[in-house]
Formats: sequence, C-alpha cells, structure tokens
Amino acid sequence: MRLTVLGCYSATPRAMTNPTSQVLEIKNQMFLIDCGEGTQVQLRKAKVKFSRINHIFISHLHGDHFFGLPGLISTFRLLGREKELHIYGPKGIKEAITLFLKLGDSWTNYPLIFHELTSKVSELIYEDEKVSVSTVPLTHRVYTNGFLFQEKPNPRTLDVKAVAKFKIDKSQFNNIKNGKDVVLEDGTVVANKKLTLDPPEPKSYAFCSDTQYNEAIVPLIKDATALYHESTFLESELHLCQKTKHSTAKQAASIAKQANVGSLILGHYSTRYKTIALFQEEAQKVFANIELADDGKVFDI
Amino acid sequence: MRLTVLGCYSATPRAMTNPTSQVLEIKNQMFLIDCGEGTQVQLRKAKVKFSRINHIFISHLHGDHFFGLPGLISTFRLLGREKELHIYGPKGIKEAITLFLKLGDSWTNYPLIFHELTSKVSELIYEDEKVSVSTVPLTHRVYTNGFLFQEKPNPRTLDVKAVAKFKIDKSQFNNIKNGKDVVLEDGTVVANKKLTLDPPEPKSYAFCSDTQYNEAIVPLIKDATALYHESTFLESELHLCQKTKHSTAKQAASIAKQANVGSLILGHYSTRYKTIALFQEEAQKVFANIELADDGKVFDI
Repeated sequence: MRLTVLGCYSATPRAMTNPTSQVLEIKNQMFLIDCGEGTQVQLRKAKVKFSRINHIFISHLHGDHFFGLPGLISTFRLLGREKELHIYGPKGIKEAITLFLKLGDSWTNYPLIFHELTSKVSELIYEDEKVSVSTVPLTHRVYTNGFLFQEKPNPRTLDVKAVAKFKIDKSQFNNIKNGKDVVLEDGTVVANKKLTLDPPEPKSYAFCSDTQYNEAIVPLIKDATALYHESTFLESELHLCQKTKHSTAKQAASIAKQANVGSLILGHYSTRYKTIALFQEEAQKVFANIELADDGKVFDI
Repeated sequence: MRLTVLGCYSATPRAMTNPTSQVLEIKNQMFLIDCGEGTQVQLRKAKVKFSRINHIFISHLHGDHFFGLPGLISTFRLLGREKELHIYGPKGIKEAITLFLKLGDSWTNYPLIFHELTSKVSELIYEDEKVSVSTVPLTHRVYTNGFLFQEKPNPRTLDVKAVAKFKIDKSQFNNIKNGKDVVLEDGTVVANKKLTLDPPEPKSYAFCSDTQYNEAIVPLIKDATALYHESTFLESELHLCQKTKHSTAKQAASIAKQANVGSLILGHYSTRYKTIALFQEEAQKVFANIELADDGKVFDI
C-alpha cells in the first residue's frame, strides 16, 4: 500500500499549499481520495498515470475537497479515456458535475458512473477480489464520509523448502496455493499448512477528513495499519473546533490511540501556524507513531 | 492600462502551464477575464490583491475558462469579503455556481450578482465614469463572447505655462479643467483650448478567445490599442480549426491587420508545439507588432 499526498492544507489553494487530495495504491489499483482544485497538476507532479485512476472517493462537497473534480473529469475526456470512471460521493455530486459538463457541451465519451452516498452508518461501497472500501461517517458541517480501504486476507504462500523436501511435483503448486492438502504416491496426506507459509497480514488505511472529534468512529477504524485524521488546529485553537467542526492534533492522536492504529498521519492544517512541526509535537504527547502529511509526500504503509 | 496574463494555454492545467485567465487594470479598476482552474494561485503569484477584483468576465463555459470560478468565489468568502462581486458570463453560469455553493452549504456573505449574457450581437455590459465594457460575439463550439474594454475620453489637462502667462488665479483651475473659458480682469475672454493641453488618447483592449476566424468581429475591435486573439494552432494544423472552432496564428494576425490594432497579443496555445516562438514567427509575416502572452507576463498597454 502506497499513499501519495497531493494536497493536505485546509481552506484555499495557495502558491505553496494545495487543498485535500490523495492517491492510494493497493494491489496495483489506484484510488483517488478527494479532489481539491489543482489535483490534476499535483497528479502530474507526482507522475501518476491518469489512466490508472478508475475510482474516485469524495468525502464531502466543500470546495477544498472537490472543486478539482470537474476539471479532472474533463481532462480524462481530452486524454481519450474509454474506461469507466466511478465516482463515490455525497448525494448531489452527480447533478453538480453533470451540470458543469452540460454547460460546456462537453459530456464525457467514457462511462461516468456515480455512486451517491446518503447513509449515516458505515456501508461497504466498493469491493473486488483484493480490496474493499467502506465509509466512515464523520461529523462535519455538511454530510461527510471518511473511507476505510482494506486489503482482503492474502493467500498462503508456497513453502519452497517444504515442497522440495516432500518431492512434490510442480503440477500440484496451484492446488497447494489454493489451500489443498497433497496426497503423496505412498498415500500419505501432507496437510496444506505444512507446505505453505503464513501470508502477510492484510493492511488497511483509514482516511478521516474533515471531522470534529468523535469517538464513534473508533470501532470502525480499529487496528487500521495507518490512519489519516485531520488536525486543522492545535489545542490553543480548540474553541474554533466546535463552530467549524474540525479537530486538533491532540484530538486526532486520541482517536488514533483508542483505535490502536499502527500510525497516525496528520493533515488538513490551517495555514495560520508557522510550522506544521507543531502538530507533531502536540500529537506525540498522546500517541507515539505520528507522521506529518505534506504536499507531494509518499508513505509506504 | 496594464494586463497581467495569469494563464494562456489551451485545454488542461499542467505543471508548468495554466488555462486562461487575465487581470486587466484600467484607471485603478481591476477586471478579471476568464477564470480557469488555478487562477487563485496565479493571482497570488502575481501579487494581485483579491479585494481589488469586483468584476469578473467569463467568455464561455468550457472548463479551461471557468472551472476556477467556484473556488475563487469561495475564497472571497473565506477572506471576509463584504463588497459586491459582479459576474458577467453566458446564461447558465448562475445556476452552476449557485448549485456548487449550495451543495457545500457555503453561500457567500457578500452580494454575488450575476449578469447573464445571451445576446448574439455586441452589447454594452458595464459602464462607469472612466471605463466601458462591451461584448464581442465570437464563433466557438458553445456560446462565447470576447470583451472590449474602453477608456472614456480623458479630460483636457491644465497647461501650466499658459495659466502662468495669463496670470490666472488658482481658484479658476477646476473650471478650466472642466472645459470653461476664463474672463480676465480686463474683460478679455481666453478660450479653454488656449489654457489646456490635448489629453492622452483613450486606450482600449479587446480580448477574443476562444474563436474561429471570423471577420465579423473586425468592426467591433477596430483601432483597439491592443488585441488578445487566440491562436491555438499554427497553419500546419489549419484542418483542426474547423472542427474545434479555433484559430491559427496567421488568422489572428489577419484579424489584427484588418482591425488596424496597435498590437496583437497571441495566446491559448495548444501544448503540441515545441516552442511558442513559432506562433510569433507565423503571425509576423502578416502583422508586424506581435507579442506573445505567457503565464505571469505583464503588458503595459
């Protein structure tokens, strides 16, 4: 799993900071999460091939999380895209995008498929053989979802030494990988467990932005390998969190601790602070494994 | 008159090139023309004060000319704007912007006033004491207007030497500036023309993008001090102009020549060419005074 942060600052695009967008690579799939203005340019800078993106997840319809979407959809058309593009986001997103394309008489040549979300409880919104994506309902000024990306359990891997020891023929290898036991020529049954190794633990990534501090999300993101949780403010601006429905770095760390995640990536910083190192300092008093998102930064999860 | 080109490349935003947007300063007013994605960032890089923009003119509703508008309008709100903001653009622009703001529950705190355009003939759309703005109907795939910005005739200026010669008292200066003759103590009438100097010629700037070659615009932009005319292609790609309804550099130069403008600024370049110098080379064979727009470039008109 590889996360590329395209933008992680709150509010408005500036010369050196970009609004929210991330691209998550899992098992050779590329998932785009949020699409603030400037996402296209950030994708180019990160050298992400546009054609690899087939699924876009939009947390909520504030401009800094989705005003880059009409342009990206149009660019896909100009690049001659033919494959389906799936958009997951709050109800209303289809009408908005459709209107923008209609006004420019620029309907896409490729199938554009909207999955509009309205549920206030977590739901499975995407699934294939290797990955599933569920919503994490968040608490913000408008209807907002976080997203939990989970690898499915990996298959057991062939124990090369063991199969050599039992002199098992290559023709059996696929059966062994699929969990079958092996019957030797003398009739002995060798259990699959003796011929395979434990697979790597499946990984998971939870994206939670934007949101007020809310412990209700803890069971949904429990034990995630990595959690991105917004930290718009520091505790010194805690009074702003109630009105704006954002979190502090300390609150994000508290959620990470309760959910027992592997690491916490902070982001969605207000630009009022002199350095984002302050967010790490504050959060580390509560939870040890803190990472700071920054535009263009890559995390191997 | 000072023109700052914020973006002048066609199609999609890229790492080093921006879609169309310009800011024109006339008599201390700032007019924004078109607003492709990334305009906010380009305004910041050009150090344009956001609060100085009160009128935004949108030529047409293709993404590369207006997908930066919802974000800019939202940023004005975040910056605490209170003044009116006037948007001039094709019918449909109000519905589109309104929907985007409604979805984000982010209506502006300041008055946002739309002037929707539908006329197929030139019309006066803005006027104050010093400046007028008229549409220049263009020929593109969707309803499109260029814009002609005209200074009003400047008042005659006081001829300091002449008033000294006639020993005219300061108290008369305002009357003279307002066109009045002066009666001296001995009863002699001194004509206003003898006490004033010819004012500088009023300047004008015509913005024509996007458009197919169309001589019908020539009388509308006749004798403009400067003309920005799109040149998406070179003559080697003339065959693409009919389908896409764009122009070549040579065609832009031909319009400039027929309209007898002071200078022609080329832009809206396709990114297929190795260097934009090719556009100048081609156009200069038809019209001498060619300038090349580029992102961030400033023209004193």
